[in-house]
Amino acid sequence: MKGLIGVLGGMGPAATVDMFNKFVTFTSAGSDQEHIPLIISSIPDIPDRTTALMHGGASPFPVMADYMKRLEAAGAECIVIPCNTAHYWFSELKDACDVELLSIVETTMDEVVASGKRRIGLLATNATLYMGLYQKGIEERGLECIRPDEESQKQVMESIYALKAGELPRAKQMMVEQANALFARGAEIIVLGCTEVPVILADAVSANPEKYVDSTGALVRAGIRWYEERVGKRCLLTK
Amino acid sequence: MKGLIGVLGGMGPAATVDMFNKFVTFTSAGSDQEHIPLIISSIPDIPDRTTALMHGGASPFPVMADYMKRLEAAGAECIVIPCNTAHYWFSELKDACDVELLSIVETTMDEVVASGKRRIGLLATNATLYMGLYQKGIEERGLECIRPDEESQKQVMESIYALKAGELPRAKQMMVEQANALFARGAEIIVLGCTEVPVILADAVSANPEKYVDSTGALVRAGIRWYEERVGKRCLLTK
Repeated sequence: MKGLIGVLGGMGPAATVDMFNKFVTFTSAGSDQEHIPLIISSIPDIPDRTTALMHGGASPFPVMADYMKRLEAAGAECIVIPCNTAHYWFSELKDACDVELLSIVETTMDEVVASGKRRIGLLATNATLYMGLYQKGIEERGLECIRPDEESQKQVMESIYALKAGELPRAKQMMVEQANALFARGAEIIVLGCTEVPVILADAVSANPEKYVDSTGALVRAGIRWYEERVGKRCLLTK
Repeated sequence: MKGLIGVLGGMGPAATVDMFNKFVTFTSAGSDQEHIPLIISSIPDIPDRTTALMHGGASPFPVMADYMKRLEAAGAECIVIPCNTAHYWFSELKDACDVELLSIVETTMDEVVASGKRRIGLLATNATLYMGLYQKGIEERGLECIRPDEESQKQVMESIYALKAGELPRAKQMMVEQANALFARGAEIIVLGCTEVPVILADAVSANPEKYVDSTGALVRAGIRWYEERVGKRCLLTK
């Protein structure tokens, strides 16, 4: 159907809920019928992305491609993936995709550049860091990338996996500490470069939205803009 | 795929987010892969259910049936519909459905009976009240159903449509007042018989869960139990 957006989710489920909620709350809609049409796959048996890249685990690519094609078959005309690490396979997925596929890394980098800040903190998975998904874009633009040190990065990963296991309070305590450490080291703004992180830091982001670039939020805004263009109608809430 | 649950949502989108969030947070899962597989349709162009039933508007049935069949085509083995009013068409949908279809009214009534309470308040749409979706079940069991009076019911409807238009604070103020009025009239427990209501009253329910029967929560628990039986694994969090 015209303008249907497919969400290739489940990586993890809580981050997919967060994306869905942002699609609903970022939209200016006076009734049910004015909201953006979505079809969401939250089938979480996709092999762990970090384990595949860092520890030789099974590749998630075939399963991701399968679920992506099912969204296309259900009528999706544009696909978004609320998982940064999964974007390591972005160009392969794009090759396999017959409809529009938006990149979370590109849309997030657009918001980093638009912020005008120069010292950019980064909270992401080991694999996203190792693959340089964000550092490349940040450094190519002459900006400085501030990453957690080795010990701190262990805490970031522990926090992400705590959320995946449903332990939000523990996840939050660890992640707030790591965000504060990046600010203390001079970060002017922090890229939440893993879609679990905006869930974990929801209160901090809500209190100081200007201090964070939320990758999920950036991808949702790009999705809503794609929809506006497709159907010729304004619906992105810009308050 | 084995155990895939289809969510026929978009009625409205915020209630569908609430259901998705409950599937994730009611599940005891140690990792992404242990969560329940879901495919969610949030295509909100389904004609308004209350308008169809009370004011002769277009029937939502053909569009609901179409989206339900798409979920089946995508592999869903069980379907749930996070909208009480839509259950007016439940038996027609069940006839058209080739997989399991769970009823929000039946699963909610099971929780009402399990509560052991006798004076049951009811917050629902005009159409759900008019069709007697809950009153029948309540009165058949010899329990008393306490509904808002005419003037109060106007506030309930205004609150529900305020949420659909993204105005949560206004919706909340009106609905809290109506819930308190039902308690003041002797309700021991209130059935949240419209899936927007648990979103609007989330704080009140969280503070006093024993005072409410949340229809979305009841349907999610029934969905998780269906999944447990299908795959032979325990995953409903029973804390």
